[in-house]
Amino acid sequence: MCGTCEQAKETAAASNGQNQEKRAKIAANPYGPNPGDYLSNVSNFQVIESTLREGEQFANAFFTTEKKIEIAKALDDFGVDYIELTSPVASEQSRADCEAICKLGLKAKILTHIRCHMDDARVAVETGVDGVDVVIGTSQYLRQYSHGKDMNYIAKSAIEVIEFVKSKGIEIRFSSEDSFRSDIVDLLNIYRTVDKIGVNRVGIADTVGGANPRQVYDLVRTLRSVVHCDIETHFHNDTGCAIANAYTALEAGARLIDVSVLGIGERNGITPLGGLMARMIAADRDYVLSKYKLHKLRDLENLVAEAVQVNIPFNNPITGFCAFTHKAGIHAKAILANPSTYEILNPSDFGLSRYIHFANRLTGWNAIKSRVDQLNLHLTDDQVKDVTAKIKKLGDVRQLSIDDVDSIIRDYHAEVSTPALVPKQDDAESVEDLQPAAKKQKVEEN
Amino acid sequence: MCGTCEQAKETAAASNGQNQEKRAKIAANPYGPNPGDYLSNVSNFQVIESTLREGEQFANAFFTTEKKIEIAKALDDFGVDYIELTSPVASEQSRADCEAICKLGLKAKILTHIRCHMDDARVAVETGVDGVDVVIGTSQYLRQYSHGKDMNYIAKSAIEVIEFVKSKGIEIRFSSEDSFRSDIVDLLNIYRTVDKIGVNRVGIADTVGGANPRQVYDLVRTLRSVVHCDIETHFHNDTGCAIANAYTALEAGARLIDVSVLGIGERNGITPLGGLMARMIAADRDYVLSKYKLHKLRDLENLVAEAVQVNIPFNNPITGFCAFTHKAGIHAKAILANPSTYEILNPSDFGLSRYIHFANRLTGWNAIKSRVDQLNLHLTDDQVKDVTAKIKKLGDVRQLSIDDVDSIIRDYHAEVSTPALVPKQDDAESVEDLQPAAKKQKVEEN
Repeated sequence: MCGTCEQAKETAAASNGQNQEKRAKIAANPYGPNPGDYLSNVSNFQVIESTLREGEQFANAFFTTEKKIEIAKALDDFGVDYIELTSPVASEQSRADCEAICKLGLKAKILTHIRCHMDDARVAVETGVDGVDVVIGTSQYLRQYSHGKDMNYIAKSAIEVIEFVKSKGIEIRFSSEDSFRSDIVDLLNIYRTVDKIGVNRVGIADTVGGANPRQVYDLVRTLRSVVHCDIETHFHNDTGCAIANAYTALEAGARLIDVSVLGIGERNGITPLGGLMARMIAADRDYVLSKYKLHKLRDLENLVAEAVQVNIPFNNPITGFCAFTHKAGIHAKAILANPSTYEILNPSDFGLSRYIHFANRLTGWNAIKSRVDQLNLHLTDDQVKDVTAKIKKLGDVRQLSIDDVDSIIRDYHAEVSTPALVPKQDDAESVEDLQPAAKKQKVEEN
Repeated sequence: MCGTCEQAKETAAASNGQNQEKRAKIAANPYGPNPGDYLSNVSNFQVIESTLREGEQFANAFFTTEKKIEIAKALDDFGVDYIELTSPVASEQSRADCEAICKLGLKAKILTHIRCHMDDARVAVETGVDGVDVVIGTSQYLRQYSHGKDMNYIAKSAIEVIEFVKSKGIEIRFSSEDSFRSDIVDLLNIYRTVDKIGVNRVGIADTVGGANPRQVYDLVRTLRSVVHCDIETHFHNDTGCAIANAYTALEAGARLIDVSVLGIGERNGITPLGGLMARMIAADRDYVLSKYKLHKLRDLENLVAEAVQVNIPFNNPITGFCAFTHKAGIHAKAILANPSTYEILNPSDFGLSRYIHFANRLTGWNAIKSRVDQLNLHLTDDQVKDVTAKIKKLGDVRQLSIDDVDSIIRDYHAEVSTPALVPKQDDAESVEDLQPAAKKQKVEEN
């Protein structure tokens, strides 16, 4: 082993002591921040909410001024750090709406999103926003087919716009567009340039939604070593990685994540606010609960879904109709014993509740036993297994409702309780009172 | 630098030559397989399709025998490598359906999924399946609250079941459940044990859906160094990372990914087949197109969505209604010049087409110019900019339809074509024929 190796070993040993306590705490949560990532912002992230900018680029979106204000207030109440608005040069009403939202006096900082051009910047700084998000395409594709400018021109425009916005005393972010198809040397050059002149944030954007997590980690980690300012990231979801990429960017040292409610945006959208909350609460529950009013997530999603006329996707994180529904017998059994067995998220954190789906052929006797208890009936474990077999048999023939299962249970209970005198179903409970209470048995699997 | 470092440097230098050609090819696609990952199966993956097992655990799922057969045939036609079915001990009909599907003579191999128990294994091997997927919970949670067994018992059961299934000449997979909350030493021990006795695959399962990509990479990469057999992975989507985790697992050396159509499964499900295809085609288009009939994806999703009574999510990868819709003016302009600017996926690979959304206030004059051309009208660029301003103005007031925009364009065209004799809208085209054709100008941005 050489000097370099020895030195590394010593450094590691020195930091062992101070990290031990932190490591012990983190070890309790295998989904927590990686203790090896000293640059990680998993426990220190911020949200730039772009439903009123990226979301306005969603195919179905048309927001009236009143609806924009309603959404902005709901986002602010939820606790987002920034609210990003459509460029005031997009249309006359866009400018007026931007001004109106700035006057609401929200806790969240208000941003607007413009092209890297003085014409846009001059209008933006007059709207009353707290900051301006500037973007320009840096990939070969966008340089050739969009604006047709070279990197020198981009740097020159960026400096002019940034210094102008800074002179107005408001925040300025510079982002490349299509960052993952841009030349890495070009990118690092322009980011270092704008960092040196005092930009507040630089942004990385996966504009076409093709980036994968390890690629994100590498680029953000490299950029983290080049600039001193905060790093913001923007991920489209075309290949389904927008939430994972956001998380991995935070691990690599990014601090801000662009999101929209339900992820609405160009094409199939960006990192969704709700999905990001699911990801982050699994990593650092205390931090997320201290900042965001998660129990308002469902109302916020319903508000936006209604405004853009879409349904909440059946498989939406957290608020999908069955996100906390447990069905297979083996899952139901364990959930009844301890919900953490099959839940990484606690539905009550979001003002929601779990549901054990027992009316189907995959059900198990533990789920049925739980239902028997809910019905305040008493059956032995062997009896529950017997009635479970009857339920599974009917479940093989057709889709079952809860009423179907309850009827089978009540009929069975009546039968076994008074074999000589089969009572009507409605009498089951009163008849039962005449019987000695069935011994409640410990839940146990064969 | 010590001997170890020197040796590493030499090895790297030696492999440089043979990798150069591969690297050059890969460099052309920034979303392609990472050339540093010599264990990567991104270009060599297989799909285990579990709509008829995991998907049956979806809250809404009730599949009749006929529907199961229809879905199995459609999956086979699509090109999935394996089809996984519900355990034959789940119910009497489950067993009969498993036998029926085995008799269909599909190209895909048929698997069934059972608990790690001889009672289940004896029934499974008699159904005619090509392989058996065995699973047992290894996390502290599941060991305590589900089956209550220790690792010795798990190893003993696993060996018994594996040797029995192997003796029948069919494939056998051993998977832990809740792998990311299991003790790493326990995991590696049991995987090494079952690998030594000749299991075909070992499986890693993120049963609660809390894993993140770098964690997945680490575990799969470590496991890759411990076992010789293939590695299969199963990711739930509770925190939105199921697609990204699957991709990262392949990078680390896993080979098989469990999916279901639309991701249906327990809670909000697992890695969706369509989403995985989106992810993989962005990385290796040739491989994906050589194996899977992507143009049948939409029909396959519609078949399953109808069977379980859900809508295709508005933001579904590939088949969401606006996955290839471009709206903001700056996007539309570049897409018109070259679709790759804002598309990492080619809609025609899936038998779909793109759509430029021009009827809204975010529209730009390039999108409107394209519409003018589609209408076979002729306007100068200045005229198009003028009519675009009128469209944006109306778009500020209310949501626009295509008809609205076409009317404005036709009215404007009529007006500028015959200023003295304002024609009726329907006459626009015939009037235009009397005019000299407007000079077609090059699309150019200011």
